[in-house]
Amino acid sequence: MNGGGAGKLADPNEDPLPGVDTYKNFNTIDWVREKSKGRDRLREIQSKSKESLWALLLSISDAFSGWLLMLLVGLMAGAVAAAIDITTHWLADMKDGVCLVGFWYNHEHCCSNSNQTTFLEWDRCPQWQSWAQLITGTSQGGVAYMVDYLMYMFWALLFAFLAVALVGAFGSHASGSGIPEIKTIVSGFMFRGFLGKWTLVIKTVTMVLAVSSGLTVGKEGPLVHVACCCANVLCHHFTKFRQNEAKRREVLSAAAAVGVSVAFEAPIGGVLFSLEEVSYYFSLKTLCRSFFAALVAAYTLQSINPFGSSRHGPFHVNFHADWHPVELAPFILLGIFGGLWGALFIKANIAWCHTRECSCVPACLRVGKHSRVSVHPPTGKSTRLGRCPVREVLLVAALTSLLAFPNIHTRMSGEELLSKLFDDCSLFNSSLLCGYQQPANTSQTGRGNNTASRPAGEGLRTALWQLALALLFKMIITIITFGIKVPSGVFIPSMVVGAIAGRLLGVGMKQLAYHHHDWMLSRDWCSPHRDCITPALYAVVGAAACLGGVTRMTVSLVVIMFEVTGRREHIMPLLAATMTSKWVADAFVRVGFDEALIRLKGYPFLEPKDEIEHSSLAKDVMRPRKSDPALAVLTQDGMTLGQVEALVKSTCFSGFPVVVSQQSKRLVGFVLRRDLLVAIDYARRRQEGVVSASQVLFRQHALTQPPKAPPHLRLRGILDLSPFTISDRMPMGITVDIFRKLGLRQCLVTHNGRLLGIITKKDIVKHMAQIANRDPDSVFLN
Amino acid sequence: MNGGGAGKLADPNEDPLPGVDTYKNFNTIDWVREKSKGRDRLREIQSKSKESLWALLLSISDAFSGWLLMLLVGLMAGAVAAAIDITTHWLADMKDGVCLVGFWYNHEHCCSNSNQTTFLEWDRCPQWQSWAQLITGTSQGGVAYMVDYLMYMFWALLFAFLAVALVGAFGSHASGSGIPEIKTIVSGFMFRGFLGKWTLVIKTVTMVLAVSSGLTVGKEGPLVHVACCCANVLCHHFTKFRQNEAKRREVLSAAAAVGVSVAFEAPIGGVLFSLEEVSYYFSLKTLCRSFFAALVAAYTLQSINPFGSSRHGPFHVNFHADWHPVELAPFILLGIFGGLWGALFIKANIAWCHTRECSCVPACLRVGKHSRVSVHPPTGKSTRLGRCPVREVLLVAALTSLLAFPNIHTRMSGEELLSKLFDDCSLFNSSLLCGYQQPANTSQTGRGNNTASRPAGEGLRTALWQLALALLFKMIITIITFGIKVPSGVFIPSMVVGAIAGRLLGVGMKQLAYHHHDWMLSRDWCSPHRDCITPALYAVVGAAACLGGVTRMTVSLVVIMFEVTGRREHIMPLLAATMTSKWVADAFVRVGFDEALIRLKGYPFLEPKDEIEHSSLAKDVMRPRKSDPALAVLTQDGMTLGQVEALVKSTCFSGFPVVVSQQSKRLVGFVLRRDLLVAIDYARRRQEGVVSASQVLFRQHALTQPPKAPPHLRLRGILDLSPFTISDRMPMGITVDIFRKLGLRQCLVTHNGRLLGIITKKDIVKHMAQIANRDPDSVFLN
Repeated sequence: MNGGGAGKLADPNEDPLPGVDTYKNFNTIDWVREKSKGRDRLREIQSKSKESLWALLLSISDAFSGWLLMLLVGLMAGAVAAAIDITTHWLADMKDGVCLVGFWYNHEHCCSNSNQTTFLEWDRCPQWQSWAQLITGTSQGGVAYMVDYLMYMFWALLFAFLAVALVGAFGSHASGSGIPEIKTIVSGFMFRGFLGKWTLVIKTVTMVLAVSSGLTVGKEGPLVHVACCCANVLCHHFTKFRQNEAKRREVLSAAAAVGVSVAFEAPIGGVLFSLEEVSYYFSLKTLCRSFFAALVAAYTLQSINPFGSSRHGPFHVNFHADWHPVELAPFILLGIFGGLWGALFIKANIAWCHTRECSCVPACLRVGKHSRVSVHPPTGKSTRLGRCPVREVLLVAALTSLLAFPNIHTRMSGEELLSKLFDDCSLFNSSLLCGYQQPANTSQTGRGNNTASRPAGEGLRTALWQLALALLFKMIITIITFGIKVPSGVFIPSMVVGAIAGRLLGVGMKQLAYHHHDWMLSRDWCSPHRDCITPALYAVVGAAACLGGVTRMTVSLVVIMFEVTGRREHIMPLLAATMTSKWVADAFVRVGFDEALIRLKGYPFLEPKDEIEHSSLAKDVMRPRKSDPALAVLTQDGMTLGQVEALVKSTCFSGFPVVVSQQSKRLVGFVLRRDLLVAIDYARRRQEGVVSASQVLFRQHALTQPPKAPPHLRLRGILDLSPFTISDRMPMGITVDIFRKLGLRQCLVTHNGRLLGIITKKDIVKHMAQIANRDPDSVFLN
Repeated sequence: MNGGGAGKLADPNEDPLPGVDTYKNFNTIDWVREKSKGRDRLREIQSKSKESLWALLLSISDAFSGWLLMLLVGLMAGAVAAAIDITTHWLADMKDGVCLVGFWYNHEHCCSNSNQTTFLEWDRCPQWQSWAQLITGTSQGGVAYMVDYLMYMFWALLFAFLAVALVGAFGSHASGSGIPEIKTIVSGFMFRGFLGKWTLVIKTVTMVLAVSSGLTVGKEGPLVHVACCCANVLCHHFTKFRQNEAKRREVLSAAAAVGVSVAFEAPIGGVLFSLEEVSYYFSLKTLCRSFFAALVAAYTLQSINPFGSSRHGPFHVNFHADWHPVELAPFILLGIFGGLWGALFIKANIAWCHTRECSCVPACLRVGKHSRVSVHPPTGKSTRLGRCPVREVLLVAALTSLLAFPNIHTRMSGEELLSKLFDDCSLFNSSLLCGYQQPANTSQTGRGNNTASRPAGEGLRTALWQLALALLFKMIITIITFGIKVPSGVFIPSMVVGAIAGRLLGVGMKQLAYHHHDWMLSRDWCSPHRDCITPALYAVVGAAACLGGVTRMTVSLVVIMFEVTGRREHIMPLLAATMTSKWVADAFVRVGFDEALIRLKGYPFLEPKDEIEHSSLAKDVMRPRKSDPALAVLTQDGMTLGQVEALVKSTCFSGFPVVVSQQSKRLVGFVLRRDLLVAIDYARRRQEGVVSASQVLFRQHALTQPPKAPPHLRLRGILDLSPFTISDRMPMGITVDIFRKLGLRQCLVTHNGRLLGIITKKDIVKHMAQIANRDPDSVFLN
C-alpha cells in the first residue's frame, strides 16, 4: 500500500474525494505537494503511453503542451501590447489635436501619410490640426495658446476620469502596477481573480487611458500584469496547468518575462528580470520556455509594428560614441543620484500612502475571512482623499496637466521625452536640446565631426532651464501619483527623472570639456573638435541609475538597457551606475519599491534574497508558545468521530498532526483540515453506520473490532505520511532557507523524536518582520 | 547554551578544536553547514563592528571583499586569456613559416607591419616566409609543397609531444576540458589540487601547445578551467573565501562565467552559461558578481587586444542580411543534424574511451581511499593505447596533420575556419568559398547588390568539395581526439562541424533559390538580384545547433551566439535550431557530453535538472537494507569511551546518529566521525583521568557521577543537534529534491519518531543510476 506521499491522498482502493486537494483563496500553496502531484500525473501518463498508440500521442502532446502554451502566451501578449501601443499613441496625441484625414490617425501617421512634410519638420503638416487651429482658426497668439491649454486639460481629465471610473466600477485589481501581487502569487499565494479575464480587459483599457491622460505613470509594469493575465487565462485550456498550482506559477513567471520583453523589446532582459525579480523557483525548463515566449512576443509586436517604420524599439536611441574611463566618475555620480532618488521616492511615496491611509490595500484582502494575513484593520483616521479615489485621481490629473503643459518637455509623454533625451545631437537636429552654436564652416565638416564639441547656444541654455524645471516637477508629481487608483508603472517615470538628470550632467560635462580641454584629465582624449562626451549616453546611464535605485534590479536592468541601446560598449557604464545606485539606495531603504509595497500591503511573501542574520532557533518561533494552550493533535487510534469533530470545530488551524499517542507524541503524519472535513462529511453521508461514537483510525492495520461497536472510520488515505519535520534546535537561518527553497507551507518541530509544535510560512514571515525590528510600516519612516 | 546549529560545533566554553570542521579530499561538503558557518561569521563581524572604528572598517572591507575578489579574477583571467591568445596565434602560424623581421611576430602582425601588402592580399608579404621559401628558396613546385608538408607535421608533432609530456610529467589534472570536474566541484565535491597554482600553469602552457599543434581541440573549455584556477588561487588571499567551501564555490561558478566571457567575448552569455550549466546554488548575489567579473575580464582582454585592430571578437562575423520565415525549415533541418551529430559524437566518443579503457579517469581517483566513488578498478583489459598516452597523442597528432594539410579548410585552425565560414561573400572577397560567377556589369552594381544571388562558379564548386571532405574529416577526427591526455575543449570542434554543414546547406539553398526563383515559396521574397539567402547565417546557425547537440546548452548558447554575431534578428533562427537539436539529441542520449563524462568518471554529481520519475520511498533507499546489520548508533549516555572507540574502529561511516537509548531509538543528534576522533584524541591527551571506562555523555544535563568512577567525557559540543530527518514514507522524488535544493550530505530516516536509517548523497546518486536502469557505463552503448 503506497499510501504515503505528500501529494498522494487516497488509498488505491478509494477514489480521490471531490473537493479534496484544492486551496482556499488567500492561502499559501504547498509547493512540495503540488510538485509531487505533477510527478504522479506524469508517471501515470507515461505508464499509460505504453498501452496504446492513442495514449502515446496523448503523452507526447502533453509533453509539448507547455511549449504550445508558451507560444500562445507570446502571441497573445504581443498582440495585446501592440494594440495598447497603437491606442496609447493615438489617444495621447488627441490631447494636442486631431487628424483631418481621419480622426483615428495619430500625429505621426497623419503627417507621414501626407506628402507636404519636410525632412526636418516631419511633425508639421496641414492635415494635423491642433485644437486651437480647429476652433479659433489660428495657432498663434494668446487665445490659441489658452484654447490648446484648456483642451489639453480637458482630455487629460476625461481620460483620467474614465480610467478611475472603470477601475472603481469593474476591476479593483487593475490599479497599480500589479508586480507586487504577481511576485506574491508566484511565490505561492492564492489570489483568485487577480489574473482573470475581467482584470485583463479592464487593466488593458484603463492603462491606455491612464497613460494617455498624461499622468506620470508608465505602462511597463501594467504590461507585466497584462501578460500574466493572458497566461493565466490561457492556462485554463490546458489540463496540465489548470490543475497544478506549481506548474501554473512556472507559466506566470515566464509571462513576467514576456511582459518586460514587449515593454522594452528586450527578450533577454525580460528573462533575466523574471529570474531576478519575479521567480521563486526558477527551474531551467522555465528559463528556456520564458526565453521562447519572450521572443515570440517581441516578434509579434514587431510585426504588428506599432512604432512605425522609422523607429526601432520603444525609445529612439541614437548615438555611437565610445566612452573614456575617466567618465566613470560622472557615471558613478549619476549612480549616487539614482540611489538617493530611489530611497527618497520609496520613503516619500510610502509616507504619502500612509497619509491616504493605505487606500492601496485592495479591499478584498480586508474581507478575506480565513486569511491570516496581517492587514491593518481600517481605522477611523483615513482622510477624505482615501475614501474618494475618483476625486484624488482627478486632482492629480488636473495638477499634472496644469503644470505639464507650459513646459515643452513635460507636455510630451514619458516615452517621447526619453527618446528625445536618448537622442544625440546631429547637425540637423533642430530640437532645443541641440541648440549649440553652429560651427562657421558647416559645409566643410565631415560626417565624423558632426557631433564635435561646440559651445552652448541660446537655445540650449533655454532647454537646460526647462529641463531643470521638468526634473523638479517630475520628481514631485511622481511621488504623489503612485498609489492612485489607476494602472501605473514605475519604470518610465523613474527613468525620466534619471534621464533628465543625466542629460543635464552630460551637457555640463561637455561644456566643461570644451572650455577646459587643456586640463590634464581631458587633454589626451578630448581635444577640441573631437567628439568626446555624449550627453545622450549620460541620459541613458542616468535613467538606468534611477530605475535601479527604485527597483533594485541590477543585471536584468543592465541587460535591458543594453538591448535598448544595442551597444555592448555601454554595458560597463551602466553596470557601474546601477551597482552604485543599488548600494546607495540600500543604505537608506533596504528593499525596493515592489517589496516595500508588498510589506505595506501585508502579503505573506518570503523574500528569496533577504539575508537577515538569525540567531534564534526553531523552538523560539514555533507555535504553541509557552503561554499558549498545548498543540492540537489527533491520535492514530482511540479517538471517536465526535471527539475529532469537536477538536476541529474548536480550532481554526488548517491542519492537524497525528501522533501515536498523547503520551509518546511520536509523529505519524499530518492531515489537512479541509481534507478531514471533506472525508468526514463523505463518510457521514455514504458510509453506513458511521456515528459520532465511531472510532477514527489513522493507523495502518485495523484493530480487532469489539462486537456491537459502530464501524471504524478509516482515514489513513487522507493522511500525509511524510510531513516535514525539523529539530527544535534548528537555527532559524536554516529553517528560513528550507521554507524558501522547498516552498513549504508548514513544518513540524520535534525534540528527541517527540512532537513539540509547528511552524507555518506565516510564522516565518512574521518572525522575519520582527527580527528586522519593524512592524511592516515603520521601517520606511524611521 | 546555543549549542545547536548544523554548523556550530563547540560549546561556548570550549574553543573549537583544531582539525574539526574541514573536509577530506574526494568527500562531499555539507552546504547547509557551510552556509551556517558563513552566517555565524558574518554575525560575529557585524556585532563586533559596533565596538570600534577599526572593526567597522574591517566589516566594511569584508563586505566588499567579494567584489574586490571578482575584480581581481576578472583582471587575471582576462590577462591570461590574452596571453594564451597571442601565443596561440604565434605558434599556430609557426607551422606555416616564420617572420624574417622577428620570429616572435605571427603572420598577421608580420604582414600588417609591412608596407608591401595590398588590400586584397593582406597575407602575402616578403617578410613572411613559408618554410619552403626559407629552405628551398621557392614556394612553388612539388618539393616546396613537400617541405611545407613535412615542416607542418614536424611542428604539429613537436607541440603535441611537449603538451602531453608536460601533462604527464607535471599536471595530470590539466588534460581534458575540466568542465565535468568543475561542475562536480561546484556541486560540492572536494577535489584538492584540481584548481591549484600548478594546474593553472601547466594547463595554460599545454593548452597553447595543444591548440597550436593543430589537434582538433578548442580552447574554450580549458579557458573555463583556467579562469576557475585563477579564482581558486586568488581565494586563498581572502579569509572569507578560504575558510568557507560554499562561498568558494560561489566564486568558482562566477569564474566559469568569466571563462566563457573571455572565450567568446560574451559576458551575458557567460553568466547564463554559468547559471545553466555550472552553478548548483546560484544566488542572486552571485548573478551580479559573475556579471561584473565577466565584464571586467572581457574589457581586460579587449584592451590587451589580441585580435588586432581589424577584428571584433574571436570570430569575424560579417553579414547583415535578414531572414525569411520560410528559412526556418532549413534552420530546423540544421537543428536535426546538430542533434544527430551530438548524439553520435557522445556515443562514439564514450565508446572510444571504453576501448582505451577509460584512460580518461584521473589516476588519483583510483587512489582516493576514503572516497566511496564507484570507479571501476583498473582491469587487465586495458589496451596498449591506454597505457601509453604519449604514443596515443603523437599518433592522433600525426594523423591529424597528415590529413589536414592537403585541404585548405582543415589546414587552418578551427577559429580561422569559423571566421571564414561566418563571413559572407562580398564582391572583393577572393576566397574560394565566394567563387561565384562575377556579374557582367560589376561596375554598375551598387553596394546593396554586392551579395545578390549569382550562379556558382568553378571556385565555389571546388570549395564545396573541399568543405564536404573537411566535414567528414572533422567528424571522425573529433571523435577520436577527445579523451587524449592534452587540454581539449569541445566547443570549437563541434561548432566547426556545424558551421561546415550549415555553410554547405546555405550555399545549396542559395543556388536553389537562384535557379528556381519563380517557385511559389521564394517568389515574393527572393527575386533575382536580391540578397535573400545568407550562407554565413546558415553557418552560424549550424554551429549553434551542433554545439547544442553536444552540450545541450539552450538559452546560454543562443545568447552567446547572439553576442558573437551582434544581431538580435538572428535570435529566433538560433533558438529554433538549438531547441530542435536538443530535443533530437535528448531522444538518443539523455545527457550532454559533460554529464556523460561525469558519469563515465563516476563523480558523485546530482544533476540539478534530472527529472527522472521515482516511485520508490525513502525506506527503499536508506541504509541499512533489510539484510544489512543494524544501523550503528551511539547513545546519549551509558556508553563508555572504549565502546565508542570500538564502534568507530569497526565501521567506516563518516558519521553516527546519537539516540536517547537503543530501545527507544529517539534521535538526539548526529556526530561526524572526524569530529568524534579529534575530540577523543584531544580529551585523551589533555583531559585528566579520561580512560576507556569513562562514560561518554552527549546529553545536556550532567548525570550525578558515582564516586570513584572515572570522570565523564562530555561531547555535546561536537554534536549537531539539528540533523535533517525525513519520514520513511517520503517519496524519493521529494527526497532527491531536498538533497538537491538544500545541498545535504546525509539525511536521517525515521518512522513514527524512531530512527530507522540514513540516506547519503552517494546513496541517492547510486539510486538514480539504478532507476535509469543503467550502470554508469552501459547507458551510452545500449
